[in-house]
Amino acid sequence: MNTFLIALDLAGTFVFAISGATVGVRQRLDLFGVLVLSFAAATAGGIARDVLISAVPPAALLDWRYLAAACVAGLITFYRFSLIERLHHPVQMFDAAGLSLFAVTGAVKALSFGLTPITAILLGMLTGIGGGITRDMLVAQVPVILRAELYAIAALAGATVVVIGDRLELPQVPVLLSGALLCFGLRFMAIRYDWRLPIAQHRET
Amino acid sequence: MNTFLIALDLAGTFVFAISGATVGVRQRLDLFGVLVLSFAAATAGGIARDVLISAVPPAALLDWRYLAAACVAGLITFYRFSLIERLHHPVQMFDAAGLSLFAVTGAVKALSFGLTPITAILLGMLTGIGGGITRDMLVAQVPVILRAELYAIAALAGATVVVIGDRLELPQVPVLLSGALLCFGLRFMAIRYDWRLPIAQHRET
Amino acid sequence: MNTFLIALDLAGTFVFAISGATVGVRQRLDLFGVLVLSFAAATAGGIARDVLISAVPPAALLDWRYLAAACVAGLITFYRFSLIERLHHPVQMFDAAGLSLFAVTGAVKALSFGLTPITAILLGMLTGIGGGITRDMLVAQVPVILRAELYAIAALAGATVVVIGDRLELPQVPVLLSGALLCFGLRFMAIRYDWRLPIAQHRET
Repeated sequence: MNTFLIALDLAGTFVFAISGATVGVRQRLDLFGVLVLSFAAATAGGIARDVLISAVPPAALLDWRYLAAACVAGLITFYRFSLIERLHHPVQMFDAAGLSLFAVTGAVKALSFGLTPITAILLGMLTGIGGGITRDMLVAQVPVILRAELYAIAALAGATVVVIGDRLELPQVPVLLSGALLCFGLRFMAIRYDWRLPIAQHRET
Repeated sequence: MNTFLIALDLAGTFVFAISGATVGVRQRLDLFGVLVLSFAAATAGGIARDVLISAVPPAALLDWRYLAAACVAGLITFYRFSLIERLHHPVQMFDAAGLSLFAVTGAVKALSFGLTPITAILLGMLTGIGGGITRDMLVAQVPVILRAELYAIAALAGATVVVIGDRLELPQVPVLLSGALLCFGLRFMAIRYDWRLPIAQHRET
Repeated sequence: MNTFLIALDLAGTFVFAISGATVGVRQRLDLFGVLVLSFAAATAGGIARDVLISAVPPAALLDWRYLAAACVAGLITFYRFSLIERLHHPVQMFDAAGLSLFAVTGAVKALSFGLTPITAILLGMLTGIGGGITRDMLVAQVPVILRAELYAIAALAGATVVVIGDRLELPQVPVLLSGALLCFGLRFMAIRYDWRLPIAQHRET
């Protein structure tokens, strides 16, 4: 991956690690537990993608900068939690930014391994949502992304833009930015206007 | 894999996806969450097997028919949930059918990668039970298969038949059908007559 | 791996399987569920490590002795649970021994695959803590290792000793024993004197 992609990836790592650490602090984990949750939330999506395309050991374990980004984010959250809590809405924005960045970098990496368009879209989405799923499973909660306002589907849209752009051989940087922007925009609007997908109708038995 | 095996595998995918979607609807997930749970329940066992034998990217991500089968099953369950609920017992039967199909196709795939008999049996069982475990973990429940009437052990029996048949060089199709039938039969009888394995005796402290 | 390492690994497998089976019995799983939890607790850390370094199929699935060790431990726990319960503190000691053994054997295996020091330390820690995390996630609990007295950090310390010893080209056996002893000692003292890492201060909202 080139420098631009790695920068996007590290930025996504940092903001997702904040979300992991926030959940860890709320669950009253100790300092090390919070760091484990930061690292898991920030890297589980990318690690799952890398395992599934056999790009092992995963970049998140080979390149110390991922570990460093996750730990710095975790320590800041742990020792300045009141600051993070005041930033409630900004954190949700960072999380949407992380989702957007990972969905597009995940799709690009899958394409660079020669996968088909549908597989690349699925892996882009997985890269975006895998960290949040792991974070919530580690604290024994139903992943919020399975219920939240247009979460996984925003990642799907962002990854789809990247794959279509690749098929049409459009220049990469604008395509990546468009994909990330679409994902971020969808998520932002969904939060702001409470857009939700339908829930099936059924009576509790 | 040949056409016969793929047909068995897709049938298993479809019925397991229904079980995933049913759990998703009961947990009040939104439409996309229900589809994620359908796909996870239907493919997690096979994906875990493929990762463990290095058959990556896994077939479930490469071949669009797995995604299609899971999504169709998820959409039907979502939009026709009352229909599925009325089919309660048939669904349990479909689930037993899926378990049987995956246990034998999983063992065959492991054998075709040159693994030892014990490893192939374990991977066949994992293919059968992995989807149900993932489905329940995603909604923060203890997997029912760890407590249900002869569930994992039925998968173990089906996979064992396949491995023994392979060692004895018996013809594949009847061996596969026998393994699947034994697994299905065990599970069916266990549900019908409430056969259960023992639970350890201990007093709550 | 040589015989000494395999012996350490099998000993770790046995004691972790007891911890898995104990959780299974407490959750009132049936006999087979208890065995699944024994095997998962004993091998998930090593399997995750092997998948991440592409040493697949994982040793725990290829070598029948891992399965045998986990099943024997599970059966003893299931049928002699009152014995295990009386051994409460010894079990915690066995668990600390398993953590120490896996942290050092995990780091050695990662180094033998040519990974960088930081990656080897992370994988050693993961080998040690992965089984306990999986065990608790399977019964829908927050992993105790995220909150326990110096648990993951003891594994980190043990793996670090192994990696430093390898860089300084010290003889392997004393380095492994020192690493395991440091991990075990930290965990033992933490349990005995209730050493804990800090928890972030925040008011429930």
